[in-house]
Amino acid sequence: MHASAISERIGQLQKVMQAKGIAAAIFTATDPHFSGYPHAHWRALQWLSGFDGSSGILVVTETAACLWTDSRYWIQAERQLQETGISPMQIEGGNTLSFAQWVVENIPAGKTVALNGQVTGLENARRLEKLLSQATLKLRTDYDLISEIWTDRPQLPENAVYEHDARFTALVRAEKLSALREKMSELDVNWHFISALDDIAWLLNLRGSDLPYSPLFISHMLVGMNEVRLFIDEAKIPDMLRERLSADGISLRPYKKASSALAELSAGSKVLIDPQRITVGMLEAKSENIAVVEGISPSVLMKSRKAQPEIEHIRETMEKDGAALCEFFSWVESALSDKELLTEVGIADKLDAFRMEKEGYVSSSFSVIAGFGANSALPHYRATSEEYAVIEGQGLLLVDSGAQYLGGTTDVTRVISIGEPTDAQRYDFTVVLKGLIALSSGRFPRSVRAGMLDALARSPLWNRGLNYGHGTGHGVGYFLNVHEGPQSISYHALADEHTVMEEGMVTSIEPAVYRPGLWGIRIENLAVCCKVEETEFGEFLGFETLTLVPIDTRLIDRSLLLQSEIDWVNQYHACVRKRLESHLTGRAKDWLIERTQAL
Amino acid sequence: MHASAISERIGQLQKVMQAKGIAAAIFTATDPHFSGYPHAHWRALQWLSGFDGSSGILVVTETAACLWTDSRYWIQAERQLQETGISPMQIEGGNTLSFAQWVVENIPAGKTVALNGQVTGLENARRLEKLLSQATLKLRTDYDLISEIWTDRPQLPENAVYEHDARFTALVRAEKLSALREKMSELDVNWHFISALDDIAWLLNLRGSDLPYSPLFISHMLVGMNEVRLFIDEAKIPDMLRERLSADGISLRPYKKASSALAELSAGSKVLIDPQRITVGMLEAKSENIAVVEGISPSVLMKSRKAQPEIEHIRETMEKDGAALCEFFSWVESALSDKELLTEVGIADKLDAFRMEKEGYVSSSFSVIAGFGANSALPHYRATSEEYAVIEGQGLLLVDSGAQYLGGTTDVTRVISIGEPTDAQRYDFTVVLKGLIALSSGRFPRSVRAGMLDALARSPLWNRGLNYGHGTGHGVGYFLNVHEGPQSISYHALADEHTVMEEGMVTSIEPAVYRPGLWGIRIENLAVCCKVEETEFGEFLGFETLTLVPIDTRLIDRSLLLQSEIDWVNQYHACVRKRLESHLTGRAKDWLIERTQAL
Repeated sequence: MHASAISERIGQLQKVMQAKGIAAAIFTATDPHFSGYPHAHWRALQWLSGFDGSSGILVVTETAACLWTDSRYWIQAERQLQETGISPMQIEGGNTLSFAQWVVENIPAGKTVALNGQVTGLENARRLEKLLSQATLKLRTDYDLISEIWTDRPQLPENAVYEHDARFTALVRAEKLSALREKMSELDVNWHFISALDDIAWLLNLRGSDLPYSPLFISHMLVGMNEVRLFIDEAKIPDMLRERLSADGISLRPYKKASSALAELSAGSKVLIDPQRITVGMLEAKSENIAVVEGISPSVLMKSRKAQPEIEHIRETMEKDGAALCEFFSWVESALSDKELLTEVGIADKLDAFRMEKEGYVSSSFSVIAGFGANSALPHYRATSEEYAVIEGQGLLLVDSGAQYLGGTTDVTRVISIGEPTDAQRYDFTVVLKGLIALSSGRFPRSVRAGMLDALARSPLWNRGLNYGHGTGHGVGYFLNVHEGPQSISYHALADEHTVMEEGMVTSIEPAVYRPGLWGIRIENLAVCCKVEETEFGEFLGFETLTLVPIDTRLIDRSLLLQSEIDWVNQYHACVRKRLESHLTGRAKDWLIERTQAL
Repeated sequence: MHASAISERIGQLQKVMQAKGIAAAIFTATDPHFSGYPHAHWRALQWLSGFDGSSGILVVTETAACLWTDSRYWIQAERQLQETGISPMQIEGGNTLSFAQWVVENIPAGKTVALNGQVTGLENARRLEKLLSQATLKLRTDYDLISEIWTDRPQLPENAVYEHDARFTALVRAEKLSALREKMSELDVNWHFISALDDIAWLLNLRGSDLPYSPLFISHMLVGMNEVRLFIDEAKIPDMLRERLSADGISLRPYKKASSALAELSAGSKVLIDPQRITVGMLEAKSENIAVVEGISPSVLMKSRKAQPEIEHIRETMEKDGAALCEFFSWVESALSDKELLTEVGIADKLDAFRMEKEGYVSSSFSVIAGFGANSALPHYRATSEEYAVIEGQGLLLVDSGAQYLGGTTDVTRVISIGEPTDAQRYDFTVVLKGLIALSSGRFPRSVRAGMLDALARSPLWNRGLNYGHGTGHGVGYFLNVHEGPQSISYHALADEHTVMEEGMVTSIEPAVYRPGLWGIRIENLAVCCKVEETEFGEFLGFETLTLVPIDTRLIDRSLLLQSEIDWVNQYHACVRKRLESHLTGRAKDWLIERTQAL
């Protein structure tokens, strides 16, 4: 994107703003469905600014344009905004409302600020409105200011929807809808409106391919006590599937009609909405004669707790995924010893290729992060065909990757040493490993919030003056989003009452240390929360590690480990070897045996 | 109190309620100042019910009376309410609003519920009102229903107020007020109303003796930018002190006039109130022409962070307090070996006596908890002259006690073994000790909420299927309340944004295990939060243990400790010996040497 094209777009926008009397316009990187990877149709922020990070906030005023990003994207924003006239701004810590502060300080009282309500969550809009109103600024959410000027806006995709193979689902659609309706009854509502694509896919046992990395399809859904209205482009649904949906009481409505879904409900209806998972725009057409009850979508909690058959499929999937990683790492090491030229980009492609061969593979679950040397210190690094490192000499190679399989979603990070590691690298690696072990083997009473568990993983690091800037664990879907709530092992998540760690939840555990300019270490497993014991003090939960990939013992300083930690590593490697052995042959199998030797 | 007298009072109340059209009246154990130990003048709940626990909620309707208590008081309530006609009810877990649920279920819609706004916090009243209004019940907070029938209500005390000796204060009054006014300017207010007695005492460097255990005086305070209005019974202030206060711009107003304090502010005033620390009644007379800003009282945060000179005084105070405990425990053991008859009540008195001899002693900071054998398993046990255990045979003796000194407030729990401990007792004791060590020696980044730290202390217990029902640490005042906020090491405190653990905060660290019917173990030290190091990952805080009392090594199973834990115990005991040695002679000194031997 040329900087001049960006300046021109901002100029056009400013004319539209002037015509409508808007003093400041705010753009975020979200869509109407709160997707992790919004479709290009909704990437207005990117179109307007040229910045393509997954998160950012652009504010355009009559005379200025500023784009706020968090620390992951400071360097990228600096580069991508060069000569566009847009100033890069930094979000420090968790101060996500700093852009609003700027608006309050720079826009005269009484003026109007615009934000597209079609892609803004109700709760976020309310928070912003409160802040602006204290400065007597007015917030309008009913303008989509760029629709007129974004003439080559990408169309929404028309990819087909398909059923999640019944061999892999624990409950049929009707059972899930019936469980949801039970929760709706408890909440005394007779309708529930859902915009979150993973909730819709999970409830209906349907999958799609509208978005990269997640098997989702673009739609909204209104669940009643006797019927379901699915707002979706009809062309996406094959005829036979339409009949099967109809048999379950699910009728199709055009996607665009979703905005009037709440307007059409009969008087006296009581509808449940989730203020974190519905846009403010979706409520605008709501009729005055219906009652709205706010609360978390029951399906968010339901789908977060995996059923036993699902966990069994995930275990099988982990064997395939682990085998692919053994094939990959053994190939990397053998290619390097054969003096082949490997680059970060090349190995990422090769990793995808190994996974694609596995039964049940559907897609990657995010773009591979392969960082060598100093690049491994950038938690969200992505090598590009223009900028990448060659893997040579001594250094740490960090590979964070995952895939979507019919039987589950994976996400794993391993670091291997290229050449002989230094003592300092082994120290950092071992301390991170201690954090991984502390949480993976830790127990805690039922009803503890997931955020609390962050202290268990971080304590071995904190005690040595180390830390990392991201969360320790995110929930993971079942052949769904690789980032799934409501639980989150992060001390920033403490304030949310819906973050309790429950049996059946799958979470990543990924402590880390990043030494800018030197190396980065992150070890990431997926684990499922399970009941460990019941004593006179109550029920205690813990984790079963699901991920099956050797941890590079050449990077472990044994003298820093307690005996119990050494035992954990040895038991883990014995299990990895036992479970993967039959999936591997030749070089990869030799590598597995070598890399799972007891400490 | 005879049960018949209670029934009669409830009957009189019900008549008043009927006359005023009140369907249910709610009574809590609070006062207008949110005191931990309200004066008898405000113990309406106790007068009405005969129940004298520190916490409880009484609901009286036309036909019934029920009293809710948490698990600490279930047995006591059962006993004290016998034959009164009042039904004891149980608050399970943290469900403190279960009484409101009961009201909603038992009072017909449209009726009126009364709660005395003079002793009810604004935030609590709002929460209750919201709940009741959902059931279309009306809440009135402007009735004090028992004032007519409580004819022998105790008068408020008239004890003299005195200045906290300047040798022990870090800042003079004027400096503290000036710092407060700076915060008020930042918040854009010109008045701040304070009802919390410890905040008033701290800001003015004054102390009193109106309440048991805390050196407080009953008053409210309105701080302006140029003047301070102290609402207090004038007779409590000696003439010379009044002049000194006047020199600092502090004028006296009658205590009863506090309720019109906000009514008298000139139009356009902006007043800061803390909704957790002001009663709903206090706001009722507020003029319409003033603006109210809600937020935590700045003094809450200011006084929680002790200044270096204060910490130095606390260190000295801990030597005196520790010496008293050595004298006490050596006396207990020697008396027992001399076959003296010791009871829980007798030793509590003796402990007070040892402390009273120490320079700077003012009072105990709470009533001594001395529990032997199965009694030690009751966290809030208080032996009485009617019910107590004799200390004999084998068992654990738990002693939790503390005192107010001019140079600080103490709170310490130790458990000693009477006779040879069992392996099971040593197991529990050692695991609790591991929890104490984990948190006492743990480090954490600046800005971590105190609640998070709970996981560090509990993890060694959780990993073994153990737990305890109370928090791990409460803040402690400086010659003020032994329970002081805002920080709290408790996972229930996670949701409060003001609970960050900061440098200078003094906290208890008190993990525990209770085996009902068998024994209870709690080891409690006070510690001050301090900066430990600064690395490229930020600033790390930790704790300096302040309490200086040997931990009974006869109860430690060394095989359960890591070498680092053994080192911690040995270093702690070396420090205790070094610091206390010069304060002790004879039997107590011998005991100190014996009990601080290295493991």
